[in-house]
Amino acid sequence: MKTYQEMTAAERAEEFDRVSAEYKKLKNLGLKLNMARGKPGKAQLDMVSDIFDQLKSDSDFQCDRMDVRNYGELSGLPCAKELFAQILDCRPEQVFVGGSASLQLMYDTISKAYTHGLLHSPRPWCREENVKWLCPAPGYDRHFKVTESFGFELITVPMTSSGPDMDVVERLVKDPAVKGMWCVPKYSNPDGIIYSNETIFRLAAMETSAPDFLLMWDNAYCVHEFEGEYVSFPDMLAVCEKSGYPDRVFEFASTSKITLPGAGVAAMAASEANLDYMKRLMGVQIISYDKVNQLRHVRYLVDKAHTLKLMKRHAAILGPKFKTVLQALNAEIAPLGIASWQNPKGGYFVSVNAIPGTARRTLALCKEAGVVMTGAGATFPYGKDPNDSNIRIAPSLPPVEELQQAVAIFCTCLKLAALEKLNEK
Amino acid sequence: MKTYQEMTAAERAEEFDRVSAEYKKLKNLGLKLNMARGKPGKAQLDMVSDIFDQLKSDSDFQCDRMDVRNYGELSGLPCAKELFAQILDCRPEQVFVGGSASLQLMYDTISKAYTHGLLHSPRPWCREENVKWLCPAPGYDRHFKVTESFGFELITVPMTSSGPDMDVVERLVKDPAVKGMWCVPKYSNPDGIIYSNETIFRLAAMETSAPDFLLMWDNAYCVHEFEGEYVSFPDMLAVCEKSGYPDRVFEFASTSKITLPGAGVAAMAASEANLDYMKRLMGVQIISYDKVNQLRHVRYLVDKAHTLKLMKRHAAILGPKFKTVLQALNAEIAPLGIASWQNPKGGYFVSVNAIPGTARRTLALCKEAGVVMTGAGATFPYGKDPNDSNIRIAPSLPPVEELQQAVAIFCTCLKLAALEKLNEK
Repeated sequence: MKTYQEMTAAERAEEFDRVSAEYKKLKNLGLKLNMARGKPGKAQLDMVSDIFDQLKSDSDFQCDRMDVRNYGELSGLPCAKELFAQILDCRPEQVFVGGSASLQLMYDTISKAYTHGLLHSPRPWCREENVKWLCPAPGYDRHFKVTESFGFELITVPMTSSGPDMDVVERLVKDPAVKGMWCVPKYSNPDGIIYSNETIFRLAAMETSAPDFLLMWDNAYCVHEFEGEYVSFPDMLAVCEKSGYPDRVFEFASTSKITLPGAGVAAMAASEANLDYMKRLMGVQIISYDKVNQLRHVRYLVDKAHTLKLMKRHAAILGPKFKTVLQALNAEIAPLGIASWQNPKGGYFVSVNAIPGTARRTLALCKEAGVVMTGAGATFPYGKDPNDSNIRIAPSLPPVEELQQAVAIFCTCLKLAALEKLNEK
Repeated sequence: MKTYQEMTAAERAEEFDRVSAEYKKLKNLGLKLNMARGKPGKAQLDMVSDIFDQLKSDSDFQCDRMDVRNYGELSGLPCAKELFAQILDCRPEQVFVGGSASLQLMYDTISKAYTHGLLHSPRPWCREENVKWLCPAPGYDRHFKVTESFGFELITVPMTSSGPDMDVVERLVKDPAVKGMWCVPKYSNPDGIIYSNETIFRLAAMETSAPDFLLMWDNAYCVHEFEGEYVSFPDMLAVCEKSGYPDRVFEFASTSKITLPGAGVAAMAASEANLDYMKRLMGVQIISYDKVNQLRHVRYLVDKAHTLKLMKRHAAILGPKFKTVLQALNAEIAPLGIASWQNPKGGYFVSVNAIPGTARRTLALCKEAGVVMTGAGATFPYGKDPNDSNIRIAPSLPPVEELQQAVAIFCTCLKLAALEKLNEK
């Protein structure tokens, strides 16, 4: 079979007619499908809802020598710190357990850098002339929006198959205005790439001009394999400490995709000096987060080993969904040479790079045919993909049958957009 | 019986010996008692813990056409908005339901005014030369600390028996640097005063020089009568609207003292224009708060009438505690003319004004005798009571028997400190 590029103009015209007819047929089905967000599906939610059977009698609420129902313990229940320390492979003293959203802990960290400064800041960032921020892209749109909302200048760093391009990063951090960087180090959003040990070491050890350079280490998918065994991953806090920069990194995680997206527990981890500093600021914002929910999670997840067992059960639901997407891409698209993608084994996304200039068109066609996906450009700073190429697929929410239909439509739209583009020339 | 002031020096010396001996005896009991914080006691927590029996089967999590376990609905569940709208007597469209802490919603409102500005701000407050803030005092220390932490200049406004001294307020808001004011309008913390209708109207209608003047209306004790019937209270959003300043006020409330302090639900209410503006900013910070806990509360509290019935049950526990404190003060202290206090019928505190210059000494004596209370000065901006007179008693946590001992010690310390002071002269 020829790729679209190898075809003659006449062959492409014929293929265009064929694909157009197929698209019309699919559109006429009048489907309503959604692959836009990394939301767990109903089967996953039902599977973990026995978490609400954990706390029953009054004595169940006593833990760590306190009544978890009352005020207190800003930085979280000690037993919840222990659980997250196991999952993140760090020490409990380095953990701060918060509310239900890790995004909120991330936002609050950056917000406090802006209003008050970090531990090593010469001044609050709102008093800086200019703050620049490194955004490995494709990346997570909500990350980019946090730093954009504070008026930072977002600088795109290209992603490689081993993480952000470190030559570029090391050059950029020589600028003292560059104050930090977003990272999703394991099963990156959306590529599903695991940062290599070399990348991790270079991020920890690089010399930055800003004394308060902040590595936002969003370990959102730390135990989120949907295929194969758990892949262990370096403890970035320890790597930074060994590299002489113990206060460089804030790590984030949550149970949003372990238990429930709307009612999980989020945590952050940082050096004790960083936590002491942040606790003083956060103690003004809140007396304590929901410790009942923290305790409920500790009782339900027990420890890391037990958590990994639960993740296997999630994988049993998620694996077939990713297989559906990847098999369709491999069968329908790979031979045509019109897109490339990684084959992730964890995380929540498949990231497709289409022929430059066709991502937006592909998604418009999808939308017309009733398939909603993450907006084109969303994976880049300011929502602008300079190549109009990257598309994020989120296969977790729809059941497999719906997913099959949605991916079939997506593949058809990808072809149609590619043919339109190639026929332009 | 003579007051301490009416006594001769010899009589006071005799009284001093008597009270000193009593103090020594009490100190030797080696008690450990706590009246420091407005924490509900264990009996209250146990009473409401059947809230955790609400959600059991998978279908229980479907509400308002969504699965509350998943991501989404930034501003809260529609049914939770309806519940808070009933409680606050406003419209559901004016309500934003958050996490477990109203303090966090308050902090985030002020933080966003600082980083981004409010709806009518000419610029973010961090770009203002100087921000001043009105603090009716005695007031709530955590309020004052929020505005202090952003470097605002705190200006003390005297409290009267009908709320903040409005002549002072109306004069101060002519300064364009005065950007806002803290208010606990019903059962004020710590005095337990209910703002009069005139005060409320003047706060809503006054002309402020700042176009973005922000009334922080912390209605923390909106349904928190511990004696007598529910006292209805004007909807400040409507009063501001009628006065021509619909966007002046942000109101806050929570179920921390209706259900559980550590695991309740908090909400804020504001004009729809204000909420639209804030939602745009908050959508960057969080995808959604814990809607499972919101739904649990809706199922448990049902509506305002049912909530008021529950508050009667809290009152049955709290009422005797307040009676214990007030009876002791009336019996032991009133005849001596060394302190004054309100007789609140709701809220969580009794506020005592001792002879100027004796609050700190009284609390030091209490501490020595094993009774921990809110630090002297805490009820004033910067933790400094200019008269060293105000003392906040929080009787909610200890059981009545412990409270009797604690109050006996407190009265003795109050007497001793007064006698020391009067004997100085």
